[in-house]
Amino acid sequence: MIIGGGEDRTDDKTVLTRFVEMAGGAECRFVVITTASRVPDKVWEMYDTAFADLGVAARKHLHLDSRADANNRELVAEIEQADGIFMTGGDQKRLMAIIGGTLADEAMHRALIERGAVIAGTSAGASAMSNHMLADGKTDLHPEKGAVHLGAGLGLINRVVIDQHFSQRHRLARLLTVVASNPHLLGIGIDEDTALIVTPGSGIEVIGDGAVTIADGRDTITNIADLPQHGCPELIDVRLHLLPSGSRYQTGEAPAPLAHFMHIVTHRNTLS
Amino acid sequence: MIIGGGEDRTDDKTVLTRFVEMAGGAECRFVVITTASRVPDKVWEMYDTAFADLGVAARKHLHLDSRADANNRELVAEIEQADGIFMTGGDQKRLMAIIGGTLADEAMHRALIERGAVIAGTSAGASAMSNHMLADGKTDLHPEKGAVHLGAGLGLINRVVIDQHFSQRHRLARLLTVVASNPHLLGIGIDEDTALIVTPGSGIEVIGDGAVTIADGRDTITNIADLPQHGCPELIDVRLHLLPSGSRYQTGEAPAPLAHFMHIVTHRNTLS
Repeated sequence: MIIGGGEDRTDDKTVLTRFVEMAGGAECRFVVITTASRVPDKVWEMYDTAFADLGVAARKHLHLDSRADANNRELVAEIEQADGIFMTGGDQKRLMAIIGGTLADEAMHRALIERGAVIAGTSAGASAMSNHMLADGKTDLHPEKGAVHLGAGLGLINRVVIDQHFSQRHRLARLLTVVASNPHLLGIGIDEDTALIVTPGSGIEVIGDGAVTIADGRDTITNIADLPQHGCPELIDVRLHLLPSGSRYQTGEAPAPLAHFMHIVTHRNTLS
Repeated sequence: MIIGGGEDRTDDKTVLTRFVEMAGGAECRFVVITTASRVPDKVWEMYDTAFADLGVAARKHLHLDSRADANNRELVAEIEQADGIFMTGGDQKRLMAIIGGTLADEAMHRALIERGAVIAGTSAGASAMSNHMLADGKTDLHPEKGAVHLGAGLGLINRVVIDQHFSQRHRLARLLTVVASNPHLLGIGIDEDTALIVTPGSGIEVIGDGAVTIADGRDTITNIADLPQHGCPELIDVRLHLLPSGSRYQTGEAPAPLAHFMHIVTHRNTLS
């Protein structure tokens, strides 16, 4: 479950409610990883209240403040036993610097693949889910060569780059910068209080308040490779898809222009 | 010459300089139509100064404040003799209510087609150039059924809808609303201080500070027809093109995904 940040935590809680349901309901075990945040206790308090409101009894705070924490078997056991794992916002680079390649990282992959646990990430936690992560980037009116930097993410999902707070912060130009420079990666922009639910091997669904934007640059003709830094590229033939809340497709049943996206997100693949 | 509004009038004057050059240079006759504006004298003063700075001696102000004015042969003669005709910003509905279907309207068409005069429109003057004109519309984060209204424009260019102040006012969502509802029309978004130069039968060029965005919805799969008013449509496969300043193509030489756009804008056609 990839959440675009700013999901409602006090009123209707559409996104968090679905997260609890998908993980198996209020009786299941939930863990909240606040490693991305500089104010982990404050963030935890917010989610603690929200999950308590949703009837969740077994809720744990895992800050994992260092790589030693992220390799601590006792702490990692919380991930190994969780049905629902939630990564909060903050800074995705901080999240990766601390848990990338640790036992905690491994435990999340196993939880998803072997046990079918539900992993949710919001804001920075959403960006960190892909193998190639949008680490930072200028939000400007136009795409700009060199304005966006990728980093290594968790690789829970591959061949995509995820951006969040997407419509609210007008981030299409920076997502177009990514796909112009990396046409083998699909750009996914997720709005606030909106989630893209990916069920491996099965399908996708968009829930919440906004929409998911997909930018497919595989056939795009661009001069970006030949531009100087900070130049604005010409882009011809970017395929754009907008999936508002309520969009829902099973693998194999989506319209043809979505087939590649569906394949990429619902199948595990070894290509980065 | 279709200008996205806010073109520089005091410093480098890139766009206005090119307008003067295209019309044949400072010795030619220029007329400024301020009908769209509620403060025509103020707007005229600004362009009067700008064109004087560019060495233009024969510069005339045509406010055309009523349909009687727009059918007044003496006033219309100014258009008939002009090498460069410039329509200012304001409200495109006001412009059309006053000059649509008048002798002034006819004189502009003849000037363009028979004499090869240069017609420029900025902001409201740009929107009014197409046959189907973006009359008004909500600028929101997402496309929305019913949020944009088209009206009848001058038809100096057909099968397109032109929006202006495009990147600066984050108007992609409203342009997508237009192409989702009217897939036979191409959406053209022009940034401030930026112009799309269309040379009939010959080619296109983008000049100025920003870019021109083209949204092609001919192959888009959407549920907009079945949505209630104000619903956010699903859009699958919108073809997006971004042509930054400096982009320049001759008819027949543009990359294949631009061929339809090139044909539409450089050829006169009777289809609306």
